[in-house]
Amino acid sequence: MAMGSPRIVVIGGGFAGTTAARHLLRRHRDMSVLLVSQENYFVYQPLLPEVVGGAIHALDTVAPLREMLPGAELRAASVRTVDLTQRWIEVVEGSAGRVERLAYDHLVLAMGLVADLSRYPGLEEHGFTVKDAAEAYALRNHVIGCLEQAAIMGDESHRKRLLTFVVVGGGYSGIEVLGEMHELVRRALPFYPTLHATAPRFVLVEYQNAILPEVPQDLAHYAHRVLHGRGIEFMLGHGVKAAAATALELDDGTIIDTMTVVATIGNGPTPLARELGLKMEHGRIVTEPDMRVPDFDNVWAIGDAASTPLARSDRPAPPTAQAAVREGEILAANILAAMDGRPTQPLTFKSRGAFASLGGRRAVALVFGLRLSGLSAWLLWLVAYAAMLPTWSTRIRVTLERLLDLALPRSVTRTRMGGVAPSRYVRHRAGDVVLSPGQLGDGVHLVIEGSYEQAAPEGAGKVFLPGDSFGQAEIAAGMPHKRFVRAREPSRCFILGREEYLNIQEALRQARERLPAGQGAAGSAAIPSEG
Amino acid sequence: MAMGSPRIVVIGGGFAGTTAARHLLRRHRDMSVLLVSQENYFVYQPLLPEVVGGAIHALDTVAPLREMLPGAELRAASVRTVDLTQRWIEVVEGSAGRVERLAYDHLVLAMGLVADLSRYPGLEEHGFTVKDAAEAYALRNHVIGCLEQAAIMGDESHRKRLLTFVVVGGGYSGIEVLGEMHELVRRALPFYPTLHATAPRFVLVEYQNAILPEVPQDLAHYAHRVLHGRGIEFMLGHGVKAAAATALELDDGTIIDTMTVVATIGNGPTPLARELGLKMEHGRIVTEPDMRVPDFDNVWAIGDAASTPLARSDRPAPPTAQAAVREGEILAANILAAMDGRPTQPLTFKSRGAFASLGGRRAVALVFGLRLSGLSAWLLWLVAYAAMLPTWSTRIRVTLERLLDLALPRSVTRTRMGGVAPSRYVRHRAGDVVLSPGQLGDGVHLVIEGSYEQAAPEGAGKVFLPGDSFGQAEIAAGMPHKRFVRAREPSRCFILGREEYLNIQEALRQARERLPAGQGAAGSAAIPSEG
Repeated sequence: MAMGSPRIVVIGGGFAGTTAARHLLRRHRDMSVLLVSQENYFVYQPLLPEVVGGAIHALDTVAPLREMLPGAELRAASVRTVDLTQRWIEVVEGSAGRVERLAYDHLVLAMGLVADLSRYPGLEEHGFTVKDAAEAYALRNHVIGCLEQAAIMGDESHRKRLLTFVVVGGGYSGIEVLGEMHELVRRALPFYPTLHATAPRFVLVEYQNAILPEVPQDLAHYAHRVLHGRGIEFMLGHGVKAAAATALELDDGTIIDTMTVVATIGNGPTPLARELGLKMEHGRIVTEPDMRVPDFDNVWAIGDAASTPLARSDRPAPPTAQAAVREGEILAANILAAMDGRPTQPLTFKSRGAFASLGGRRAVALVFGLRLSGLSAWLLWLVAYAAMLPTWSTRIRVTLERLLDLALPRSVTRTRMGGVAPSRYVRHRAGDVVLSPGQLGDGVHLVIEGSYEQAAPEGAGKVFLPGDSFGQAEIAAGMPHKRFVRAREPSRCFILGREEYLNIQEALRQARERLPAGQGAAGSAAIPSEG
Repeated sequence: MAMGSPRIVVIGGGFAGTTAARHLLRRHRDMSVLLVSQENYFVYQPLLPEVVGGAIHALDTVAPLREMLPGAELRAASVRTVDLTQRWIEVVEGSAGRVERLAYDHLVLAMGLVADLSRYPGLEEHGFTVKDAAEAYALRNHVIGCLEQAAIMGDESHRKRLLTFVVVGGGYSGIEVLGEMHELVRRALPFYPTLHATAPRFVLVEYQNAILPEVPQDLAHYAHRVLHGRGIEFMLGHGVKAAAATALELDDGTIIDTMTVVATIGNGPTPLARELGLKMEHGRIVTEPDMRVPDFDNVWAIGDAASTPLARSDRPAPPTAQAAVREGEILAANILAAMDGRPTQPLTFKSRGAFASLGGRRAVALVFGLRLSGLSAWLLWLVAYAAMLPTWSTRIRVTLERLLDLALPRSVTRTRMGGVAPSRYVRHRAGDVVLSPGQLGDGVHLVIEGSYEQAAPEGAGKVFLPGDSFGQAEIAAGMPHKRFVRAREPSRCFILGREEYLNIQEALRQARERLPAGQGAAGSAAIPSEG
């Protein structure tokens, strides 16, 4: 990093942020460009559906920012505060949460959007999102886990539920994830002989009456035909009402019993973007045509996080990778122009086309007006994606894996590498069984809303209300539950995982054991005590 | 699974268990073989050092048991109880912890050994082990994390500490992990320009006066020369005294400042093996020469979990993959012989050779008495391992990755897929800094042993004793610490991670908010309350 030279800070390591940084360095060698990203890698999101399907390795969809951006200064950190008037940002780094203040001359806001499922009750708790490699891999593991459980499940209705997979949202990512999940299950089932009797069920729920609004109708129809031909159910014109642990409810009251709901709808601004107090439109920061943030001559916004008006169009630039790359390029030119006092140029953008893979060597493609479908589109998609990948390493590895996948079986290994959340929220519908006899239980349940009832031989049993919790006795003793616990009404609880609960109890036991005589364990109130 | 036919239950999905199951099915098609394994995959442990080095994908070191063992019944479950007289086992399955009892006619104990670092204070808390794919990948992520932190670390001494990597144990796995870690750092450093000034440090600590006892002296010397030539320090004839968050102490008082201690020493029986009450030797279940457990005609033990006397040898069969495979083969024959009332055969075993990769295209090999070292040994190792891999899929993928690794850079991406432990124990030496001004802190600290002191401007500050906790106020407020917190003496505390602590507090807040009037939150005592 060159001293004295103007410092440009880019927040966000996606398509927009990395393109901007690369072009700034390319046009101006001794410029000081600092890129701040939560992770130290770039995620090639278009590949994530294939990670869900197990066709390619999660790690081959990501590329190290340090490899992509030689010459840039990189911080794997989260941004805590931005002071647009004082011209600095504050970042939090490392496991110890080191806070550091960094000054800038120009600031580029390219933090993208985050999944926001809050509009749909239960979807935040039970909807899978596919925003990064870890999430995609976790969903894949969950699907395999459903097969494993179903394979040893006696109860027919629950087995069917485990084998029902629902995707909400009929855009690209919804259709691609659906196609890949179907492919994964289709190719995994032969390894589960006990499941040959039960056919898996796949459902697409889309609020509009058509899928793939991004491509011409005939291609969308082709995609619909192909997926329908594989037995996938389409519930078009249906919205989501609510999700719970064991079912998805649609706005017309339809109940789909499932353990797997993938939500590809609902994006919102990052917490940081909210706090900036800038003018927003549909959760995106409104900019001038040159991507400058109004009232600031040194603050810019690009990518999904920004809403930039397009010349000769009533719509802002679309939230696509193509547009983000274009914005990054022009932004670099504009920042340099602004520094030299030259006029900036407005954003112009024209889509070069669109792809949607359907899994099973089928895709639809619209490239420079040319319409393709089927195997030819899939091959074009294969090549095009490889070309768009960020590094040679990922290009070669991804292409090889896709070709190997044509010949080799898909793996059904389920590792703990997806990372198991130690705690989570769960919603139940009235009557849902939360704990069954013979189960150790998955954790301590703290009731947040509604109420639960423990079945008793003589009828009405113990009731748990908000603030109450249950399950700890059985976990502490390592003894299975003897009775059913059911939700009495639509309810919500917080589950602290079995293992984590036991770890915490053990720590408290050890601390108490060593309490100095006459010393109270004041602080330990900050950590769980036995119930 | 064939009804009525005798049911054989195998506990453990390693080399021994999978070989036994495969040969049982091969020799007797309609036999009912049930294999119970914690995971639904087989781990090819010899590849794990390369996962640490980032040369191959963690997921390519594992193969699905369902793919390896068609015809076997598989349970991804943990064994809770074994009743050797009633002839059943009890397993726990799935996230809900479903408990199920399974009867057997013959039982095969092949659960292997687990890492047991309890003999070395602090090593359980701060020693990395490399027993499965997730652990290997977590260690790789940790190494990259050390580079990321060092790259932005102002404090010279802490930067040195972050760049010091220690391996304890000079056997195969210790040497291989050491070589691969060195290779990873060597190839990653070019991406960290700010680190060009500081040279990384690698140390091997071995209690014996030589490394690689498994191979002939001249090969061991070669390995020593090669690694020494790379600047790796050898501390031979040194034992570990204790480990702490920021240092490793040796038995002669030597202190090595480091954040990375890999422990390849110390194996012990699984909790299950302990509970069986069978005769053990060095933590392994003693068997008859035919691998039968004394006093039981239908219980057998093989693999690392077993200690089986060898004909014409004063030593039991070694705990190696080769021996485990051999044992699995003979066991299958013996179980069938026992069923038919034929005599069983005693275990015989002769090692076919040994390999140790040194990273950087160097290895030592002893094959059928032939001694090789350097590139030729490495090439032989490449081919031999590929041949020994469990499925065609892994053979092809691993070989391809190893070849790609010769040409492509190693990735420095650090994903959260390793899984971050929500809570952990940490040991500190007297004077160790636990929290510094400007840090949010990594979590709530509950003091277990010793004591900590918060520095105060006017000298002696607040003291935290066992049962006390600190850090929650700053985390709750999201404000960085203003003062140092140091260990006053050798101390130990339990850290509940920042994110997890906040999740739990938020859940409690929501529960309280909805408390029915006049209702006490009895149960919530089971989950943390604000400190």
